[in-house]
Amino acid sequence: VSASVWLVGAGPGDPDLLTVKAARLLAEADVVVHDALVGDGVLAMVPASTELIDVGKRPGRPVPQELISTLLVTLAHDGKRVVRLKGGDPFVFGRGGEEAQALLDAGIPFEVVPGITSAIAAPAAAGVPVTHRGVAASFTVVTGHRRAGEPDVDWRALARTGGTVVVLMGVAQRATIATELIAGGLDPATPVAAVHSATTGDQVTVRCRLDELADTPVRSPAALVIGAVAALELYAVSARASSGVLAPTIG
Amino acid sequence: VSASVWLVGAGPGDPDLLTVKAARLLAEADVVVHDALVGDGVLAMVPASTELIDVGKRPGRPVPQELISTLLVTLAHDGKRVVRLKGGDPFVFGRGGEEAQALLDAGIPFEVVPGITSAIAAPAAAGVPVTHRGVAASFTVVTGHRRAGEPDVDWRALARTGGTVVVLMGVAQRATIATELIAGGLDPATPVAAVHSATTGDQVTVRCRLDELADTPVRSPAALVIGAVAALELYAVSARASSGVLAPTIG
Repeated sequence: VSASVWLVGAGPGDPDLLTVKAARLLAEADVVVHDALVGDGVLAMVPASTELIDVGKRPGRPVPQELISTLLVTLAHDGKRVVRLKGGDPFVFGRGGEEAQALLDAGIPFEVVPGITSAIAAPAAAGVPVTHRGVAASFTVVTGHRRAGEPDVDWRALARTGGTVVVLMGVAQRATIATELIAGGLDPATPVAAVHSATTGDQVTVRCRLDELADTPVRSPAALVIGAVAALELYAVSARASSGVLAPTIG
Repeated sequence: VSASVWLVGAGPGDPDLLTVKAARLLAEADVVVHDALVGDGVLAMVPASTELIDVGKRPGRPVPQELISTLLVTLAHDGKRVVRLKGGDPFVFGRGGEEAQALLDAGIPFEVVPGITSAIAAPAAAGVPVTHRGVAASFTVVTGHRRAGEPDVDWRALARTGGTVVVLMGVAQRATIATELIAGGLDPATPVAAVHSATTGDQVTVRCRLDELADTPVRSPAALVIGAVAALELYAVSARASSGVLAPTIG
């Protein structure tokens, strides 16, 4: 028995950062059901003859998770080869676990195909390694977006780990996040890099101190990278040194 | 100016989980310099005519990091197109930041190509989402392997984050890690999934409680997934329900 639904990570935006498997599945699917966070470049790789369904959960026009799960089950029952395409990785705040559970409950064979998470790739695209010898020996990925029924994030405990903190979907909550992390013991001067639309032509990186984050304009979606590594600029410096390689970093 | 060195993530093991870009770079490289953690399936994708250099840091036969950096610079100066291939992602304990810094210092144009980290893909391959609604709203990735000059990991602070903890390169230190996490407040009954050689034909998953981890045989390399999500088995149940899809989970 082969799968009939694939929960596929679309990566951070650049279609070149799709996995080989994801690219093949997109070419072979009957239907692609995608989120708002999937990049236009990735969607452009879907053949024109393939049905494309946008269930992007945009503010003010949410598609309830239950409807998405029901849609996947219905399409699978119709005999379609369904790719459920999610920005980044399906299991990093992608609610992939919930959809997997729904498919499981319905007896639909499925497969999970990991994708490059922007929690790691967005910092990298700005020249920031999430771990770095002598600087950060761990990193925590956390969502700034709280839903009903979610366990609270203990930001003060996070502040004490000594590692890099990467916040996804946290632009709107950044004032509270900064306040809590400083209350937990993080130095107000801790470097922050906010990377918007990483790995696409729209990428913009803004850098500031943690105590400046609330008042620093940041466009959503962005990954907020908080910690000593955020002061590194391996790419940008390289680009200057060699007169132009790589992804541009716009400060 | 194009790059002459690419620091490329090889992903968790399955060559299908290379990025499209990594697969293309491997096909076009003059030299591939790789680690021990790069899977055989990935190495098999390197054309036979391409020079392959193994700098795997195996126990008892370490290649000093400085020599690796010097090698990359020398090959680039010789005009070679060099792919530096690292297991997982170059910036997740891959010392990619150090190599990027060395290339930067030498004025060599380079590019970082992220890869799928086994910190997320290994749990996924065992049916474990690192985040799950109502269960885990954050995850921390940490290395169990300590080097001189590294900041210490505050395991007790990690225990208080309330999120999933994923330990890479921690099999040998698992007794200490479990003791520290329990001392930090984690329930001794916290579920653990240890996933060896994820996404390859050798994948084996062992499950236990945190207080049983020290006495549970685990083969290295493995990702240790610690937290309530480790009790989930979305894949394995699916495989049973549909009489065979997906990666096998061997308990």
